[in-house]
Amino acid sequence: MSYDSDNIFAKILRGEIPSEKLYEDEDTFVFMDIMPRADGHCLVIPKTPARNMLDASDEQLTACLRTVRRMGHALMRAFDAGGVTVQQFNEAPGGQEVFHLHYHVLPRHEGVSLRPPGQMAEMEVLKAQAEKIRAALAETA
Amino acid sequence: MSYDSDNIFAKILRGEIPSEKLYEDEDTFVFMDIMPRADGHCLVIPKTPARNMLDASDEQLTACLRTVRRMGHALMRAFDAGGVTVQQFNEAPGGQEVFHLHYHVLPRHEGVSLRPPGQMAEMEVLKAQAEKIRAALAETA
Repeated sequence: MSYDSDNIFAKILRGEIPSEKLYEDEDTFVFMDIMPRADGHCLVIPKTPARNMLDASDEQLTACLRTVRRMGHALMRAFDAGGVTVQQFNEAPGGQEVFHLHYHVLPRHEGVSLRPPGQMAEMEVLKAQAEKIRAALAETA
Repeated sequence: MSYDSDNIFAKILRGEIPSEKLYEDEDTFVFMDIMPRADGHCLVIPKTPARNMLDASDEQLTACLRTVRRMGHALMRAFDAGGVTVQQFNEAPGGQEVFHLHYHVLPRHEGVSLRPPGQMAEMEVLKAQAEKIRAALAETA
């Protein structure tokens, strides 16, 4: 399986498609999932090409996981969440839909199930949540 | 939140509780999940204490992810799987039940959903699956 640079996350990285950006460093980029399964559901991706975990380098995995941890803390603060769920899907049977390595990071509250997949968020709601997350990131930096 | 060394995975690491071991290196340990949500469902843990991702060090995260990637390749080979799902839960509202950092690695097949949580495996079945995974690890080493 090879990397196809026409995937939607590669287009987001190149600025060809807009995204609600939350965080960026030298190696990773974070933005809101537009079909959130929980309020604050975001995606952490490496800036360099990797189809998924199976072909990712140690450096890509390390960079992503540092950012996933950072986002976990920020999401708990932003949403007063009690926990965080991390999911990462590899190949279509594994649940992958976009073929650029990405980690789902979801703030969680006791007794609140994840919403079913595939429901598009309202952009105004997404923007307001993103604002809270960026503020929490600034506080925890 | 602090680390409690009485958790069941710490006991497995200390050899106080048996496990169906699949792989071990200097930093990580892998064993079968006894309540598998897919055939071959295994758990990757660091050998050193971490409650979950939120308090894990870069070194622990990197070591785990290298082993998760290795297990992903082995599981795909062992079960002729088309993909791999990775899940990692932080704190009880995030889905965590044992408070030692662990990554769930699940081989997946097209059209086959994960089984509901909480169903104990038959030990003979688990042992046979573990044998296949250890053989695949030896082939991919």
